[in-house]
Amino acid sequence: MSMAAETSIADKAPRTERGRKTLRKLLDAAAREFADHGFHEASISGITRRAGVALGSFYTYYDSKDAIFRALVKDMSEAVGAAARNALVPGMDALEVERAALEAFLRFAAENKALYRIIDEAEFVDAESYRAHYETIGSRIEDRLRAGGKGGELREGLGTPEAWALMGMNVFLGLRYAIWAREGDPDAAEVAAAANRLLQSGIAPIA
Amino acid sequence: MSMAAETSIADKAPRTERGRKTLRKLLDAAAREFADHGFHEASISGITRRAGVALGSFYTYYDSKDAIFRALVKDMSEAVGAAARNALVPGMDALEVERAALEAFLRFAAENKALYRIIDEAEFVDAESYRAHYETIGSRIEDRLRAGGKGGELREGLGTPEAWALMGMNVFLGLRYAIWAREGDPDAAEVAAAANRLLQSGIAPIA
Repeated sequence: MSMAAETSIADKAPRTERGRKTLRKLLDAAAREFADHGFHEASISGITRRAGVALGSFYTYYDSKDAIFRALVKDMSEAVGAAARNALVPGMDALEVERAALEAFLRFAAENKALYRIIDEAEFVDAESYRAHYETIGSRIEDRLRAGGKGGELREGLGTPEAWALMGMNVFLGLRYAIWAREGDPDAAEVAAAANRLLQSGIAPIA
Repeated sequence: MSMAAETSIADKAPRTERGRKTLRKLLDAAAREFADHGFHEASISGITRRAGVALGSFYTYYDSKDAIFRALVKDMSEAVGAAARNALVPGMDALEVERAALEAFLRFAAENKALYRIIDEAEFVDAESYRAHYETIGSRIEDRLRAGGKGGELREGLGTPEAWALMGMNVFLGLRYAIWAREGDPDAAEVAAAANRLLQSGIAPIA
């Protein structure tokens, strides 16, 4: 993660490598603390204990439990975006990009099960962060769909409704197959392939 | 709503028409109280005050704030299903059913803005109800997709991934166009038509 991204997720930017590591430890510990206890029962001392960091260090970076929660939502939002971007390979066409991004998201969610609980709790704890999370992802998808339409790889005229439809597909496939995974489920690649086939040609009978 | 449905949303079933009306008032008041204050700050006296019902009457039907919250999630879940069903007309083909169900859902969510907040808070207050809500809707969609595949109106082999993809589309289109509606947005019919075109033929270029 770039320094620019890291500074945006602390109230006060760390100036040293050691500071950046402490910040990372605090955010990872906060994810576990908030996921286990929920925002209201979670405590700053619980976060610093999990992080193995002195209580005073917390206040070097954050003013409050609210502040680190807000930072964590932003950090997770960026991590979701990075997981999708890292799965992309130059030369993929527009539909293949959506398939690879969804597969990467499903794997990310399976390995970061705190994700849903924390983003979802943001609706109640920090409504602005919650909305920003989805508006940001929605815009990113919409940009890809519009670019695909212009480049001839997707049909033209795709916009906000299709972007939010696609985001909702991805979020709910993550809920079902990463968070609520069951024995015998198709794997991430199979789920992403099924969703991609829907995007490729819909659910109507093959003509 | 049938008597059978009403009895399932109270701890103790009302035996008279007056009792059924009181129960309905309590549930409608609970929706407003929970939406305005959230579960933790909401109170039974707040619910009975809004309902214009004596405090004692509450306990005729529910044992606790938890009990009426759980009943409310179930009631809303049933109301979402009923809104979709009521929009269906005999003779609609499988894709038209999905279009009509989504349009009805978007209108329902716009008129019942408490819906998202209450269902979403269930994840934290009553995780079992939250999961049951989506498992129920997902199964219902999956049944329709499988029936459509058998009847030749949809392609064969559709199942759980496509059902959850479709549910996620609908939930996120409701979030964007009913809950977070903006000036100048397309209306419910236009949003449902865009989603239905995606289901009809995907987002690939027209061959």
